Amino acid sequence: MSKTRTIRTQKIPVGILGATGTVGQRFVQLLDGHPWFEIVALVASERSQGQRYLEACRWLMPSDPPDSVINQPIVPMRPDLPVQIVFSAVPSAIAREVEPQFAAAGYLVCSNASAHRHVEDVPLLIPEINAEHVTLIEQQRQKRGWSGLIVTSPNCAITGVAVALKPLDEDFGLQKVFMVSMQAISGAGYPGVASMDILDNIIPYIPGEEEKFQQELQKLLGTVRNGRLEPADLIVSASANRVPVLDGHTVSLSAGFERAPTPAQAHAVLTSYHPPEICAILPSAPDHPLRVRTELDRPQPRRDRDTADGMVISVGRLRTCPLLDLRLTTVTHNTLRGAASGAILNAELLVAQGYLDS
Amino acid sequence: MSKTRTIRTQKIPVGILGATGTVGQRFVQLLDGHPWFEIVALVASERSQGQRYLEACRWLMPSDPPDSVINQPIVPMRPDLPVQIVFSAVPSAIAREVEPQFAAAGYLVCSNASAHRHVEDVPLLIPEINAEHVTLIEQQRQKRGWSGLIVTSPNCAITGVAVALKPLDEDFGLQKVFMVSMQAISGAGYPGVASMDILDNIIPYIPGEEEKFQQELQKLLGTVRNGRLEPADLIVSASANRVPVLDGHTVSLSAGFERAPTPAQAHAVLTSYHPPEICAILPSAPDHPLRVRTELDRPQPRRDRDTADGMVISVGRLRTCPLLDLRLTTVTHNTLRGAASGAILNAELLVAQGYLDS
Amino acid sequence: MSKTRTIRTQKIPVGILGATGTVGQRFVQLLDGHPWFEIVALVASERSQGQRYLEACRWLMPSDPPDSVINQPIVPMRPDLPVQIVFSAVPSAIAREVEPQFAAAGYLVCSNASAHRHVEDVPLLIPEINAEHVTLIEQQRQKRGWSGLIVTSPNCAITGVAVALKPLDEDFGLQKVFMVSMQAISGAGYPGVASMDILDNIIPYIPGEEEKFQQELQKLLGTVRNGRLEPADLIVSASANRVPVLDGHTVSLSAGFERAPTPAQAHAVLTSYHPPEICAILPSAPDHPLRVRTELDRPQPRRDRDTADGMVISVGRLRTCPLLDLRLTTVTHNTLRGAASGAILNAELLVAQGYLDS
Amino acid sequence: MSKTRTIRTQKIPVGILGATGTVGQRFVQLLDGHPWFEIVALVASERSQGQRYLEACRWLMPSDPPDSVINQPIVPMRPDLPVQIVFSAVPSAIAREVEPQFAAAGYLVCSNASAHRHVEDVPLLIPEINAEHVTLIEQQRQKRGWSGLIVTSPNCAITGVAVALKPLDEDFGLQKVFMVSMQAISGAGYPGVASMDILDNIIPYIPGEEEKFQQELQKLLGTVRNGRLEPADLIVSASANRVPVLDGHTVSLSAGFERAPTPAQAHAVLTSYHPPEICAILPSAPDHPLRVRTELDRPQPRRDRDTADGMVISVGRLRTCPLLDLRLTTVTHNTLRGAASGAILNAELLVAQGYLDS
Repeated sequence: MSKTRTIRTQKIPVGILGATGTVGQRFVQLLDGHPWFEIVALVASERSQGQRYLEACRWLMPSDPPDSVINQPIVPMRPDLPVQIVFSAVPSAIAREVEPQFAAAGYLVCSNASAHRHVEDVPLLIPEINAEHVTLIEQQRQKRGWSGLIVTSPNCAITGVAVALKPLDEDFGLQKVFMVSMQAISGAGYPGVASMDILDNIIPYIPGEEEKFQQELQKLLGTVRNGRLEPADLIVSASANRVPVLDGHTVSLSAGFERAPTPAQAHAVLTSYHPPEICAILPSAPDHPLRVRTELDRPQPRRDRDTADGMVISVGRLRTCPLLDLRLTTVTHNTLRGAASGAILNAELLVAQGYLDS
Repeated sequence: MSKTRTIRTQKIPVGILGATGTVGQRFVQLLDGHPWFEIVALVASERSQGQRYLEACRWLMPSDPPDSVINQPIVPMRPDLPVQIVFSAVPSAIAREVEPQFAAAGYLVCSNASAHRHVEDVPLLIPEINAEHVTLIEQQRQKRGWSGLIVTSPNCAITGVAVALKPLDEDFGLQKVFMVSMQAISGAGYPGVASMDILDNIIPYIPGEEEKFQQELQKLLGTVRNGRLEPADLIVSASANRVPVLDGHTVSLSAGFERAPTPAQAHAVLTSYHPPEICAILPSAPDHPLRVRTELDRPQPRRDRDTADGMVISVGRLRTCPLLDLRLTTVTHNTLRGAASGAILNAELLVAQGYLDS
Repeated sequence: MSKTRTIRTQKIPVGILGATGTVGQRFVQLLDGHPWFEIVALVASERSQGQRYLEACRWLMPSDPPDSVINQPIVPMRPDLPVQIVFSAVPSAIAREVEPQFAAAGYLVCSNASAHRHVEDVPLLIPEINAEHVTLIEQQRQKRGWSGLIVTSPNCAITGVAVALKPLDEDFGLQKVFMVSMQAISGAGYPGVASMDILDNIIPYIPGEEEKFQQELQKLLGTVRNGRLEPADLIVSASANRVPVLDGHTVSLSAGFERAPTPAQAHAVLTSYHPPEICAILPSAPDHPLRVRTELDRPQPRRDRDTADGMVISVGRLRTCPLLDLRLTTVTHNTLRGAASGAILNAELLVAQGYLDS
Repeated sequence: MSKTRTIRTQKIPVGILGATGTVGQRFVQLLDGHPWFEIVALVASERSQGQRYLEACRWLMPSDPPDSVINQPIVPMRPDLPVQIVFSAVPSAIAREVEPQFAAAGYLVCSNASAHRHVEDVPLLIPEINAEHVTLIEQQRQKRGWSGLIVTSPNCAITGVAVALKPLDEDFGLQKVFMVSMQAISGAGYPGVASMDILDNIIPYIPGEEEKFQQELQKLLGTVRNGRLEPADLIVSASANRVPVLDGHTVSLSAGFERAPTPAQAHAVLTSYHPPEICAILPSAPDHPLRVRTELDRPQPRRDRDTADGMVISVGRLRTCPLLDLRLTTVTHNTLRGAASGAILNAELLVAQGYLDS
């Protein structure tokens, strides 16, 4: 990344709700050395209270836990943390209850949970494609009387599809999407998928997954008009499969448009796409959110998931579709771009937009 | 299998062209103990001449090579074998040249190669769904002046799709198919896919594969009228992926029909499908070629590929499709039903239809 | 298997303690069609009472559950079953309590649990190598006043080592064993090992495993003298690893003897080993319990685990050891020979030895 | 890495022999951005002459090829390169012929090939454990009349064993090593191991591998006396297995010493080991070459191979051995520490020792 990013002389303290789970651990790992943020509150459930972080969690990330957190105490999940920004990595059932409490108490809640994704006045954000959706926060605050706010990041499998289709939607008018996902085991958390179920195998079903795709894609590609979100008018037919891959969701998809692009036109549009300008100053935003590959056999999850620290969506196999208009394949790092890094990017957007009290 | 099959007092001698390759080995393994056939000619390339079978091949099948073949000599690929039936397991380039020579010389060639699949007067057979296509042989013999014949079996990935869609086509009129395959590594032969390419990975491309699907499905589901094949009128959009699974091709598919079936109707039609009557006496034909699974997470390649010695197509996840009519998932054993066993079944059909000189 | 086995006109009714777990399911699958035994009692814990078998268990075996059991009711774990033989597939903590109750009440308990393996008067049986250990039952009954009995089968990883070393021990006097196991994930049960822990990985530790090996090997190769077992005098140094293999434990081992055999001598002794004569009439005993492979790269778990329905131990890579005398590699099917099939073979031995009341 | 390393104002130009193969690619990837070295000569076989690097190689590394090399021309394998240092990544048969030509012509050849590893006057180097072996170069030059030199790096599987045992050897006198390796597929190069051979499997044999271990370990732990190497007096018994792991060789080993250390003593010695001082200024040398893990289930290849950019050997499971003195497990990144990075570290050592003409 060659762009000049803002360097802050003093870091912004942040908290992590659910800091000991796998997504919470990913937040801890990613926020270590972050140019803007600094972890000062590790929040976990009752039974971890009084423990230090390293005692309270079974660390599963590839590298060691950062020295800066291993001795921090676990604190209770109450809105009395010495921070303004909290990342939420709690299960949806808990998120549904806790996140509004923090928002009401003035916290900026950047959630990775699915609990509020589908609520009309809660932005479902991918800054590179819909940064303007943050303006829904006005409606959210008015309606709920919150001094804080909640923003959410989308399902890990739809994230890459949305980023890949956004430029095409702008130019050609997306109408229909056929998608078959081949999702990595890390998407199921830990312990998640039993090895006896997935070695030398595929599981053609992920509970609750296929239903989310249409609603989230409509929202992600929707338009804010008069402070309200109008979902995009499109249909999604999806099949979700679990495959023996550690990280990186691969999606084979076909898309139909108002005006059919040729593969060459699609390639041109994808490579020349310009994210909203504000992304240029967000530390976690890659220089370009899309990487279009022209090799016949790419993208591949193991070889492409880590492009630009896992923040770039790899797209390839652009070709016409006999039924709709365009076939393509996407690969997205599900636990980075599709989870923790995505939520951190959202927090950066909030800061850049001035949502932080000075 | 509880059905009474014909027991033959004397077995029919058969030969295998390309007996030392992986498909050839599979033929050898499957024909050991076959109720009708007996291997008497193991044919391989020049460089194996003069060797015994066990010396000439690097045996890769799960069990040991049958005692009956290990000492048989390798014989040259010339149409002077003491058999009437030959199974062809040679590469397509060789098949293109050699198979017509054998057919001209009076041999019944049951080919697993793709060389002649798309030739109009060469039947592409799956007995349970298009046994009547054997009648194309009349046209073939007339046109070419052969006393023998060639019949072929389809691509391993389209086989399961064809068997699963045939009953639905009959009742509802198939028009459109969107399919994403997740194909096992054994489909690429040996050594085939490098382990460095597929462990913890997916390859979203299989050379030459996607193009075959529409043409083969049209032919498989076509109708013989006045001795000629009319291909089915349908469109296929396909994406082929290689996945880290040993055996068993999984396909996520959506299908559109003239008259949309409900999932319940589709279930009823699939379970009540009756293969042509002649299948009842073919030793390799399963009692029913389809197994419809109702568990949410089936079919799975590792758990379902071996159903009925790998001859049954497992179908599941029947549900409506927001874009076409029906979504479903199929699993097919690619090296059994989709290759060697399929060709053996074709040979059984030829015998049952009286194509063997008495 | 060409040997003539006894055919029984009437089958012996048997029960399975813990019939719904993975080992229990394996017993159910293996006993379906068994020439001597017939399942009449499926025993499971409280919470399954009143259910039929198919409702009570989440079936995980490769093929479907046998028709004969799917509607059988689950019965309570009390010694009032209409059988004389029970197979125990319950966890060790439960086995410790329940198995003696059944033995006291007259049942022949063939246990797969580790609970009583190390008890001096409980035979640890592999019929092909120590069938005479059943005579310990006299001591067991005298000491405990049981009309029934308990026999156990060994740990799945030591089983293959014991069978491979027994013939060598007889001829050369085994003294030292250095062994490194690479154990399949199925050895950990279900859900067992998380896929996140084992894909593209090795876990160099299996809780409680290494400690068992020396004690069990000493007992397995021990001698019964005056009705008491004298353990073999040998030392085992073991390291146990979990590897991403579904079934089949591979062990790299070196062995030291009183008199060092050459690899050729070892090969001769292994191939000419004669199991006790009584094994010839046991339906589950393979013709020969050992298969010595001479290919440089065998045995391999995926290619050799299923030899003779998983009952044969494959041995290979016989070569001298610079530190001890002989290096070799063994592969054993851990859930067949190393678990359920092993316990069934023990039951067959008890029947053949006349332990069943007539 | 917090140590201050020398920053060079002008980089040292280097060449890579065999730059298009997998090891050559790894050199290209690792040397991109290296603080001391800069690639100016990409050498490959005849058939790549005249091509640019990106055309000539099928790039297989995880990230993209560095911009600085993609347009560099492939140059012939002749000792007329504008560099003093060449890294050799050619097959051993070619290395045997070519490396001496370059050494004779004044080049410093840092070889990853096995060709000259066992030659008495060619240093087999791991700077952290035997940096003083570079002095063998005097003997080499005298004997052969070379103005240049050859140094080699060891087999990827023995590297970790040597680093882990060196501190123990110093304090307790190593005498005997039992080792069973579980080696990653990347060790076999590309295409290397067929996926059909290794998925759900182990191959208990790696051609030519076991034989190397004793000779290389004796040399690595040997002593230079009067300008000549005295190999360490020790015996190695090894079994080499290929496992379905991408990168990272795991070794289960037992070691016997003149004076038996307790696990606690071994732990203390390993953690307090000081590499030769010169390592402190080598850019690729980690702060400490060993990481001793105390978790019961570590080290694991996937979780530990990348420690300190793959340069640290992870050691764990320190415990007594019933046969020798100490059991332990090591994990080493085979294509980084065990191959390209190791050779780069050797080149850094040569530079730091003043072997470069000024």
